[in-house]
Amino acid sequence: MSNLDMNKKIGIIKELLKQIHRGISVEELKTKYSQVLMQISPIEIPLIEQQLVKEGISIDEILKLCDLHVALFRDYLVGRELKDIPNGHPLDILVKENDEILKLSEALGMYITSISIESDHNKLNELYSKAFELAEKLYRASRIHYQKLQMVVFPYLERFGIYAVPRVLWGRENEAITKIRRLRELLRNRGMVNEIVEIGKAVVSDVSELIFRESKILYPAIWSIFSEGIWKAIYEEFKEIGFAIKIDSIWETHENPIYPWQIEKGLDEQTIERLPSEIKTVALSLQQGLKFDAFKLIRDGYIDLDTGYVNVDEIKGIFRGIPIELTFADKDGRVRFYTKNRFMKGFARVKTLLGRKLEYCHPPKLEPTIKKIFEDLKNGARDYYEFYSVIGGRIVRVLAIAIRNDRGEFLGALEVVEDITEFVEKPEEIKKRIMIL
Amino acid sequence: MSNLDMNKKIGIIKELLKQIHRGISVEELKTKYSQVLMQISPIEIPLIEQQLVKEGISIDEILKLCDLHVALFRDYLVGRELKDIPNGHPLDILVKENDEILKLSEALGMYITSISIESDHNKLNELYSKAFELAEKLYRASRIHYQKLQMVVFPYLERFGIYAVPRVLWGRENEAITKIRRLRELLRNRGMVNEIVEIGKAVVSDVSELIFRESKILYPAIWSIFSEGIWKAIYEEFKEIGFAIKIDSIWETHENPIYPWQIEKGLDEQTIERLPSEIKTVALSLQQGLKFDAFKLIRDGYIDLDTGYVNVDEIKGIFRGIPIELTFADKDGRVRFYTKNRFMKGFARVKTLLGRKLEYCHPPKLEPTIKKIFEDLKNGARDYYEFYSVIGGRIVRVLAIAIRNDRGEFLGALEVVEDITEFVEKPEEIKKRIMIL
Repeated sequence: MSNLDMNKKIGIIKELLKQIHRGISVEELKTKYSQVLMQISPIEIPLIEQQLVKEGISIDEILKLCDLHVALFRDYLVGRELKDIPNGHPLDILVKENDEILKLSEALGMYITSISIESDHNKLNELYSKAFELAEKLYRASRIHYQKLQMVVFPYLERFGIYAVPRVLWGRENEAITKIRRLRELLRNRGMVNEIVEIGKAVVSDVSELIFRESKILYPAIWSIFSEGIWKAIYEEFKEIGFAIKIDSIWETHENPIYPWQIEKGLDEQTIERLPSEIKTVALSLQQGLKFDAFKLIRDGYIDLDTGYVNVDEIKGIFRGIPIELTFADKDGRVRFYTKNRFMKGFARVKTLLGRKLEYCHPPKLEPTIKKIFEDLKNGARDYYEFYSVIGGRIVRVLAIAIRNDRGEFLGALEVVEDITEFVEKPEEIKKRIMIL
Repeated sequence: MSNLDMNKKIGIIKELLKQIHRGISVEELKTKYSQVLMQISPIEIPLIEQQLVKEGISIDEILKLCDLHVALFRDYLVGRELKDIPNGHPLDILVKENDEILKLSEALGMYITSISIESDHNKLNELYSKAFELAEKLYRASRIHYQKLQMVVFPYLERFGIYAVPRVLWGRENEAITKIRRLRELLRNRGMVNEIVEIGKAVVSDVSELIFRESKILYPAIWSIFSEGIWKAIYEEFKEIGFAIKIDSIWETHENPIYPWQIEKGLDEQTIERLPSEIKTVALSLQQGLKFDAFKLIRDGYIDLDTGYVNVDEIKGIFRGIPIELTFADKDGRVRFYTKNRFMKGFARVKTLLGRKLEYCHPPKLEPTIKKIFEDLKNGARDYYEFYSVIGGRIVRVLAIAIRNDRGEFLGALEVVEDITEFVEKPEEIKKRIMIL
């Protein structure tokens, strides 16, 4: 592809920079220079940019190239099959998040190059601080981007029996995130420059490679497989997780959202035929083709709790399992439910308390306080109260929490007792046990 | 009642002591001395005992009197109407716990008297240590005794519309417990002797007075009101709370337990007529008599969770209300339910995770670990796993807990995420906020 030698390429880029400086738009430049630019692989541009840094051209100047580079990279990556994605569509958002991630990682790469050649103390300080800021932004942007894939997009692929691609992607995403986090720490603590340069290069390369894989394999696959209803559900859940970019245009569809467990049959042969070769090859090599995951989420006797479906036995088990103690008094101040668990024991509670008036569950001295707390929670003056106390020699946090339904109507007050003895008595030991996964 | 003067009484008690020393049984002494003892109020005996301490008679010697005193006090307190309580019956247990509480408080009183007159350093040390031990025992015994009244017995009285007696008793119990706790602290820290003596006297007097009120008002009332089914339920719930004494004889009944909310009508006139005058007077002075509390605990659409009855809306509200984050995977390792709350945010979780295989919810690197944890919880090798980590800058405890039904069958694994940042970062501030209620 690239017949020009590196020096010529650098010359072209310098010329481009001048034009950008004169205010010529990215679109115009793309058209004007398309012939020449065709001969520079988008992968080479970061290398050229870093060369320019070494030649002493200011980063601010070179950063202006980023937009052009991203535009080029995108043309290179996003094939014809993805051209008709509507503005604001969840897949459009993913593509645009990658633009942002690419820009951040490229700028970060240039700052790191500058750090490696700068000797002036003040300038170094500034470079470190800028680079750290970019690493932090890159961390947040890529984390939220990958989470949307891992938590929202991949479950659909798994339902269709496509496991390898999402698992491999997640593995690489995880490595990239780990490196970005490490780089951020090195920049924060002014680690060895060699190490910063090395890990910085790895980050830039990991990030580009992921963008490449997503654009060339994942996006074409999901664009061809997912129905409008699936995209609707994905859009809803994307909003739960959040975005790495500002969302300007709102995408709408009249389809009802379709969740993975609502999909009732696997991909047909035609659809598989249209998949990117990386997925198709795996699919066709499997003995029974793609194995559809027919797991039935909703069954007889299951209760819909909005965020899941469980039966009564499971609800009881969960309440017995949690390491905190609950007592629920309903909107009329009657004790209706409490839990016991194997981890801790707070206040005494027995079945004879059921139906009892809340204020009678405490010594008369506390009656006015209990009534006040309940009233405050009921009328919305307070959302919760927090106390610390000691029960049976254990330090506990006691929360009194207003419970409301999703229409905001008061359902009752929940008392939560947590045993925090270990945390406040041995905080340093706890901190030593922290693992970052 | 007491025509004898104090000196004569002390003389009689000294004579009794000699006889006890010779091995004559409490029962025999009671018969032999009944005429004379009739003239000594049981309330006076602690005073006489303390006088003996001052005269230099050893505490060990005087402690032998305690049994006699308790027997006398009991005869004095427990009227004819309570004579036929079966051995091991919950009311019998309450009476016997009071014997124990009385013995402890009396012995404690004597040790405190000794402390106030002892000057030998070594002996003082021993007295303090004995007295502290007794205060601790008294604290535990009275606490568990009062809790059974407050949590199990009183709700029935409230159901029948009897509020004043339980409320007043609880108020006094609370004062007594507060004083015992204070006394225990003073003994532990060797506080001012004057204060110890003063609060010691208050404890002995509070405790006796409570025993008096329970025996003369509460016990006759509940013995006449409560049905066999009620006692059955009380017995079950007493066991939940525990006892201040060893339970030798097991009480049995074929009646089904009756809980407060299962009682459908108030007391009839005949029963009210038979109540101790303290309750009857209040009852008759009320305009509509005793107002039966007809609260209906179980209603249409309520789910029986063993420790309460709630509807689906309330269950959802409770799960949204608790300050911890749950994710439940069923016995087949499928994500079936998760919660979100307003207090903290741990891992990302969205509806597309429902039905997903647990091991696919984590990076491939962690897949073997996740599988191992799930298997260990499933086959019972572990009951739970505990980790500490950081999510979004917050320190969290992550528990993976085996969930089983009451027959011990594995239902699934529950992941619990708790935000413990405040506790481990500012333990001293938390401790300052501790209040003892």
